[in-house]
Amino acid sequence: MPDAPLSPAVAEVRLAVRAALAALPDPPTAVIVALSGGADSLALAAATAFEARAAGIRAVSATVDHALQEGSDRVAAEAAAQATALGLEALVQRVEVMPSSEGPEADARSARYAALRTVASAENAPVLLGHTLDDQAETVLLGLSRGSGAASLQGMAPVRTDDDGVRWIRPLLGVRRATTRAACVASGLEAWEDPHNADPRYLRVRVRDRVLPVLEAELGPGIAEALARTAEQLREDAEAFDEMIHETIEDIVEHAEAGISVSAAALAANPAALRNRIIRLVVQSEFGVGLTRRQTVEVARLVTDWSGQGPIDLPGCTAARHGGRIVFAARGR
Amino acid sequence: MPDAPLSPAVAEVRLAVRAALAALPDPPTAVIVALSGGADSLALAAATAFEARAAGIRAVSATVDHALQEGSDRVAAEAAAQATALGLEALVQRVEVMPSSEGPEADARSARYAALRTVASAENAPVLLGHTLDDQAETVLLGLSRGSGAASLQGMAPVRTDDDGVRWIRPLLGVRRATTRAACVASGLEAWEDPHNADPRYLRVRVRDRVLPVLEAELGPGIAEALARTAEQLREDAEAFDEMIHETIEDIVEHAEAGISVSAAALAANPAALRNRIIRLVVQSEFGVGLTRRQTVEVARLVTDWSGQGPIDLPGCTAARHGGRIVFAARGR
Repeated sequence: MPDAPLSPAVAEVRLAVRAALAALPDPPTAVIVALSGGADSLALAAATAFEARAAGIRAVSATVDHALQEGSDRVAAEAAAQATALGLEALVQRVEVMPSSEGPEADARSARYAALRTVASAENAPVLLGHTLDDQAETVLLGLSRGSGAASLQGMAPVRTDDDGVRWIRPLLGVRRATTRAACVASGLEAWEDPHNADPRYLRVRVRDRVLPVLEAELGPGIAEALARTAEQLREDAEAFDEMIHETIEDIVEHAEAGISVSAAALAANPAALRNRIIRLVVQSEFGVGLTRRQTVEVARLVTDWSGQGPIDLPGCTAARHGGRIVFAARGR
Repeated sequence: MPDAPLSPAVAEVRLAVRAALAALPDPPTAVIVALSGGADSLALAAATAFEARAAGIRAVSATVDHALQEGSDRVAAEAAAQATALGLEALVQRVEVMPSSEGPEADARSARYAALRTVASAENAPVLLGHTLDDQAETVLLGLSRGSGAASLQGMAPVRTDDDGVRWIRPLLGVRRATTRAACVASGLEAWEDPHNADPRYLRVRVRDRVLPVLEAELGPGIAEALARTAEQLREDAEAFDEMIHETIEDIVEHAEAGISVSAAALAANPAALRNRIIRLVVQSEFGVGLTRRQTVEVARLVTDWSGQGPIDLPGCTAARHGGRIVFAARGR
């Protein structure tokens, strides 16, 4: 198949993929493209086919058929056919979505990522995901509504290695959704329009169709880029704090029969940003509970504003000051 | 004058003022309340009168007449009369607003703060400002539209000491605007409605009247609180980074005839969050220029991705790598 004519949109998507591949510490022998058939992942697949060929890397597309909508098998087959025409090795994985209390969106997502993880592990290859700058802006706004600070505003990671060792890469976080659409049109690719993307029952759809346009109209254009820049910077901030905490956490935490304890002096010596993060990390890792800001600050007062106050009830545990240590114990122990 | 009946709203505003006064390192002998006559500052004035009396502190209200609207002298006089009735020493300062390129909002603000600063310096007293949780949420949204990360999202400081040594305190950042209105009603205080607060030519008014209601409707209630919590946490983060930078900056920066230089090795050893902040701080303090994220990251590449690239043109200066140092020089030197 001859190369598509090089429109600026096609060039931008290719450049983004090239940069993402070049930034990998070890050049991979293969890459997986997660391909829904929508404009974002289709433009990503086309660019990846081109760049992988240039770099001598195998490129595989993985399309997950969630079997939740009428004709989903046909959509998956068409996506795979376009991938094959682009020169990719096209895989289709049909999954069964197990309903849970998380809701249908999250259930489909879990099933999709599990299937992609299986392919990635089998191929020992990173997975490229088609999330764009617009998706990132929406994620930041969704995080804002949770109000848990930098952690909820940092959006999606451009590169992340999960606990199974699978590397997830998002080359298009700096590319607008309009660019992926233009790239598909310029390349003669037919993108699928997911009807879910217009269903206002989904929070993300409402953010896209109702919130962002109001922000653009009232605060001025460029808000999506501003949100994406914010995410990038807050991610850096979070990584810096993580690094600092991991350098010190082992020295200040002690495991005991009653639970886990942290040195009050060490907590006091750290600025509030680190102190509160250490408290949250300890409770999260020991009891699997995410503390709210209000709870975290109340625990911190055992250090910063100590006046003999009693134990604090938290979800799943209690926090109390015993001498020079803050002790977190499971309830009822 | 007898105390107002203790409605929950009145109690909440008083508690917030009491906590803010108690948190001061040295108990002041007097406090100034910046009083526009609107519900927020009027509720603040009433609570301050009560708490100051209880604490044996002089309480002074300062009302600035900007002389920009017909009848502004009458509004100021009425605010002062209510303050006097509350037991405050009431001052009215008439100012002349000097038009600048900053726009009328900013010009009025500058004149107002200058007048308040004069009163504060004369009385050697901190100034209490009536900004509420709603104002804080609006400030975060305005900051989001600038997209400069944590710096623009941290909102207004609860306590800040300026270069003239004047301390500005915002006791009501955790109190909703509806509470200040309820407190005024419960206390029989007549709040002035600034017509500017309904003028959609002001960006802040559009954020209040158009953006926040859409966010509440689409993302769920509690968004204002979530934005305020975010600001609080990001302010902690920024303070931690400031502290870290001030501990190291003198060791890694050198002043020279050509400008200022920073050790590339020191920049490389720091995580991106600190590296980028150091670059921005150096250029800001030396050349008075705020770099964009894109410019900052380009300078950082002289450290993180060095391949012999030439000098980088920045607003007001250039950045170049010379051996082991990044040199910032004024243009044309």
